[in-house]
Amino acid sequence: MDYKALAQKYGTPLYVYDFDEISRNYNKIKTAFKARKSIIAYAVKANSNLSLLKHLANLGSGADCVSIGEIKRALLAGIPNYKIIFSGVGKRDDEIAEALEKDILFINIESEAELFRVEEIAAKLGKQARISVRVNPNIDPLTHPYISTGLSENKFGVAIDTAKKLYLKAKSSPYLNPVGIHFHIGSQLTELAPIKEASAIVAELTRALQKIDIDIKFFDVGGGLGIRYKDEKTIEPYDYAQAILSTLSGTDMTIICEPGRFIVGNAGVFLTSVLYEKETGSKRFIIVDGGMNDLLRPSLYNAYHEVEVVGKSEDASLADVVGPVCESGDFFAKDRLLPKTEHGDIVVVKSAGAYGFVMSSNYNTRPRPAEVAIEGGEDRLIRERESFEYLIEKEVRFMV
Amino acid sequence: MDYKALAQKYGTPLYVYDFDEISRNYNKIKTAFKARKSIIAYAVKANSNLSLLKHLANLGSGADCVSIGEIKRALLAGIPNYKIIFSGVGKRDDEIAEALEKDILFINIESEAELFRVEEIAAKLGKQARISVRVNPNIDPLTHPYISTGLSENKFGVAIDTAKKLYLKAKSSPYLNPVGIHFHIGSQLTELAPIKEASAIVAELTRALQKIDIDIKFFDVGGGLGIRYKDEKTIEPYDYAQAILSTLSGTDMTIICEPGRFIVGNAGVFLTSVLYEKETGSKRFIIVDGGMNDLLRPSLYNAYHEVEVVGKSEDASLADVVGPVCESGDFFAKDRLLPKTEHGDIVVVKSAGAYGFVMSSNYNTRPRPAEVAIEGGEDRLIRERESFEYLIEKEVRFMV
Repeated sequence: MDYKALAQKYGTPLYVYDFDEISRNYNKIKTAFKARKSIIAYAVKANSNLSLLKHLANLGSGADCVSIGEIKRALLAGIPNYKIIFSGVGKRDDEIAEALEKDILFINIESEAELFRVEEIAAKLGKQARISVRVNPNIDPLTHPYISTGLSENKFGVAIDTAKKLYLKAKSSPYLNPVGIHFHIGSQLTELAPIKEASAIVAELTRALQKIDIDIKFFDVGGGLGIRYKDEKTIEPYDYAQAILSTLSGTDMTIICEPGRFIVGNAGVFLTSVLYEKETGSKRFIIVDGGMNDLLRPSLYNAYHEVEVVGKSEDASLADVVGPVCESGDFFAKDRLLPKTEHGDIVVVKSAGAYGFVMSSNYNTRPRPAEVAIEGGEDRLIRERESFEYLIEKEVRFMV
Repeated sequence: MDYKALAQKYGTPLYVYDFDEISRNYNKIKTAFKARKSIIAYAVKANSNLSLLKHLANLGSGADCVSIGEIKRALLAGIPNYKIIFSGVGKRDDEIAEALEKDILFINIESEAELFRVEEIAAKLGKQARISVRVNPNIDPLTHPYISTGLSENKFGVAIDTAKKLYLKAKSSPYLNPVGIHFHIGSQLTELAPIKEASAIVAELTRALQKIDIDIKFFDVGGGLGIRYKDEKTIEPYDYAQAILSTLSGTDMTIICEPGRFIVGNAGVFLTSVLYEKETGSKRFIIVDGGMNDLLRPSLYNAYHEVEVVGKSEDASLADVVGPVCESGDFFAKDRLLPKTEHGDIVVVKSAGAYGFVMSSNYNTRPRPAEVAIEGGEDRLIRERESFEYLIEKEVRFMV
């Protein structure tokens, strides 16, 4: 890909997504589950750009949403309501009501209190809410503590015993229809064993529920397929699917899988221009025009992203790639072997398709970057760069 | 303050700022430096709301800005250009040019490469750029590594020897006018000794420069006055000023001080509503409608904020206050003794006036909160809550 030309055409900082790679990644997972009926419900939180969602909609994707805003995005992009799930530990009343009005596939319940609220709201609207319960199988996913979600000290899901109670409650309510069961033990999983173990625990619960006529139709295995940022071990979608399917013998359920990072993570890059180099003490800094406000992962998770200077390789020495934001935490890479750069050189920050733009902010009154899609060799703008006027639109009229 | 009424009137999550407290804090610092001419150049990055900037402009405040966007905000709010400084390690060409066009007080230079760019741009525009050099005195400020900026392995400023060289270069250039000297060793300082030590080092350099006819008029001591989030030791503005002034005998310069957090930090709160409580394993969670996207400090810095449930104190037990965002890192407080709450109770997150709204994002397609000012007992909206339509405005038209 000609990053230099893209940077020139659209300016920097810039997000660029390869829609063809997104198609390939989507199809890999869809194919892995071909032995069963399945819905690949893309985790919108990873990258919620409307054009990207529309691309996935065209591939047949569903959507895993964690807010009414994400549900609206999915619908707007053409993902049908019967492929949309509403997850998340904290749903507001108005979000629950709107999700019911929009008649999405089901709402993932994360606590007893939430089940009661959904029932109450459904009753008020004269509707029956299709639900699933997120079960916390208490399995260590062996990943970063900030993105692990399946341990009992996490805020997510309910324990097995509580889940049973909630299903019985749901069965007895005219306003609730328990159609699914859900678990998700963490993001960026790199080991098969925890997935299989978690799946087996939840499958056993499902069989127990089916025996008492609670007809679970959807077995929602969450997401969490890892990608390679550096040299991580990753899981093949086929092996991942097999690990899960092997626990489901004797059942006839539609699999729901919620990949986010796996589909978009390595299909995106972040482009930023070199402003200047500087040396202080023994340190060499490459200062670029992108900042932590544009791409937060290095600051927030100390995440590793490959970086590369377009068209240069000579005179390499160790350097930090840092942004203009006034925090020492504003960096993209530390102690990397990088060539000597000049003003205007383009630095490519790789694996930036997931949890990149969606976590961006306007810190330091920095307008957020533009987003560009590449498809069949053609590039096109899919979100325009923010302007100063846009940033102050919601406050300027109140300045008296 | 009646937080319950404010939450009802404006909805939650919500930022509320006490403009009277902001006035008091501003005046404390202004008074502390009254032995000298001084400009209190408020660090806009801490909280850049236009109404808040206008309030400070009315008090006589200047502005320390780190982007052209912040400069535009300051000017729009009525802060005069001759009280505006442009700081930051990475300034784009267009930002430098616009700052020169707007004829602000001076540009803080952070590297040799930057000095050359500023010279080049000033020459092109036929202007003389007023500059100061940010000197890195290599002093450990004894604060959080992410907000410490005065050590030589930081990306900020230049070493003493480099600074001298840059001043000589500036003196010899028709396009550069070295009028100031700058240092800033870190944010949230809680010790006087490092400030005094840094000031003495920079004062000595200033005297040496003045001896060779480099007429430094502005001694810019940066910001960094700490506030109390929990039980931190803090510095009194008077003692802070004295520590600095004691190093300046025999000089006649205008002091520039750049407080941000000190002025707004404890003048703001973040209000959020309880959605429900839940217990998993041995943990109790209070799930609220605000998330890490609204207030990032706990997730990013593991920062401590006092929390309080409005009007409740009974049945207290340990709990985590967590948001609805799908990350384990989405929390406001951990293991706090908090009363039993109910749906709709209001949780006050204190000390949220600085680095709160400015770092907020739309992660999980969550519209950013509204902001409200309280002044003389009256409340008024100063930024309206974002809408779904606003969030997708920059991308919806590109969805083909």
